[in-house]
Amino acid sequence: MKSLTPKAVSVKFAPSQDRNGADHTAAIPCNDWRPCRVPRKPPVGPMSEFTAKDIDALYRVMAARRDMRHFLPDPLDEALVTRLLQAAHLAPSVGFMQPWRFIRVRDRAMRERVHALVETERLATARALQEREDEFMRLKVEGVRECGELLVAALMPGRERFVFGRRTMPEMDLASVACAIQNLWLAARAEGIGMGWVSLFDPETLRVLLRMPEGSRPVAVLCLGRVPAFYPRPMLEEQHWARRCDLNELVMTDYWTESSRSPTRESTDT
Amino acid sequence: MKSLTPKAVSVKFAPSQDRNGADHTAAIPCNDWRPCRVPRKPPVGPMSEFTAKDIDALYRVMAARRDMRHFLPDPLDEALVTRLLQAAHLAPSVGFMQPWRFIRVRDRAMRERVHALVETERLATARALQEREDEFMRLKVEGVRECGELLVAALMPGRERFVFGRRTMPEMDLASVACAIQNLWLAARAEGIGMGWVSLFDPETLRVLLRMPEGSRPVAVLCLGRVPAFYPRPMLEEQHWARRCDLNELVMTDYWTESSRSPTRESTDT
Repeated sequence: MKSLTPKAVSVKFAPSQDRNGADHTAAIPCNDWRPCRVPRKPPVGPMSEFTAKDIDALYRVMAARRDMRHFLPDPLDEALVTRLLQAAHLAPSVGFMQPWRFIRVRDRAMRERVHALVETERLATARALQEREDEFMRLKVEGVRECGELLVAALMPGRERFVFGRRTMPEMDLASVACAIQNLWLAARAEGIGMGWVSLFDPETLRVLLRMPEGSRPVAVLCLGRVPAFYPRPMLEEQHWARRCDLNELVMTDYWTESSRSPTRESTDT
Repeated sequence: MKSLTPKAVSVKFAPSQDRNGADHTAAIPCNDWRPCRVPRKPPVGPMSEFTAKDIDALYRVMAARRDMRHFLPDPLDEALVTRLLQAAHLAPSVGFMQPWRFIRVRDRAMRERVHALVETERLATARALQEREDEFMRLKVEGVRECGELLVAALMPGRERFVFGRRTMPEMDLASVACAIQNLWLAARAEGIGMGWVSLFDPETLRVLLRMPEGSRPVAVLCLGRVPAFYPRPMLEEQHWARRCDLNELVMTDYWTESSRSPTRESTDT
């Protein structure tokens, strides 16, 4: 089985440059999809117990991770699924609340019902995209029926009891679940397993379908499984849906300096 | 400089067990903080271009990552900061919208003003915690003034234009930023750099302070820097603020089966 890996491109770390003579914009090279290689000698030496090879492996996994929509149907080994869930559970959480919950959808009929929900929302999204409707409909946006393992990641109920780090920012619970999903995603990629995060569903309908209590909320349908190949670049970039932003435009110093024209514009960037 | 590393504990992968004879609960071993070691032989072999050592490195980084509040003041190397931001920019995002923005707070006076905002919210949170107020006040909850590099991560303005994956789930933009922060966090940990995610601030006040446009939203004050040592376990676990949940209780099959008593209860878990 062939795995398409992005070509390793060595990237020059250019000295920091000012734009417009001002000191409020950080100049950052290596803005495209290609993996940013760690310089040969470990940059922090005795500070880290991780070797240059370890660090390089981490950056390579991050660069090779993709939002997958094409899967092979092989089921995943139970021990592998366990490792991926353990990786998720190692994520940070606001006030150590660990708000993540996971439902493994193993029943075929239940999976079909989840797929039906996603399909309904896919059509509704296409209509909402107006002039990009046809373009959107040509994209493959999920692999719910084909993937080897289907997981639903959710926020637990009763989160209003947790105040630490959330009094003014209640949405930090979602941020914690997202970190858990990212851990799972990176672990899957390292293990040669693809994952796709599907958010094309009505959360309340999915909550009721999965008999989830009031106050809980599904946040992701996660398609996991072996894949024919990993996309060399993000599929939405390959299909010209959107472009990779220049990192220089996303990093500012001391206060906001980005121009009002956002680098990515879904509705006009055709 | 000594880095406290968690002891490598080999964990047995127990066969899946049913509780109560039902098939709706996954039994998952290795629920505590210790790193879950990858079995010696690569589990997927030809499926992954990553070696068993690469995979092991990733899991070790995840297990060693901590929410840090104790920092040394040394500034970070510019090339290192660049690599960390590049790692963030490799994160997934809903519809490839890349909603993350970063402001590097380099001006000392600005940093003091950010600290003042955090301090105000710290006191407000303590009062809101009622019977846990004193316990909370004894915790060190941020390292804004001491850390070598202060970053604010934010959501860009104009997100309402992005519909793909967000028609029913607009909060997926925040999930994308959280994934970017988690990438940055793991990269920092691998490079021997500590990070703390502070969400103790009023987002609107911080937005105005950083001259951020309406519609944008700060989501994290990120303290980055060299540390005296990494905590062997999450600090809030060490200080008995909360317990690590049993992963078995967080994973269900086909539909929700968790009992109404949540494993973590901030307000009663004293």
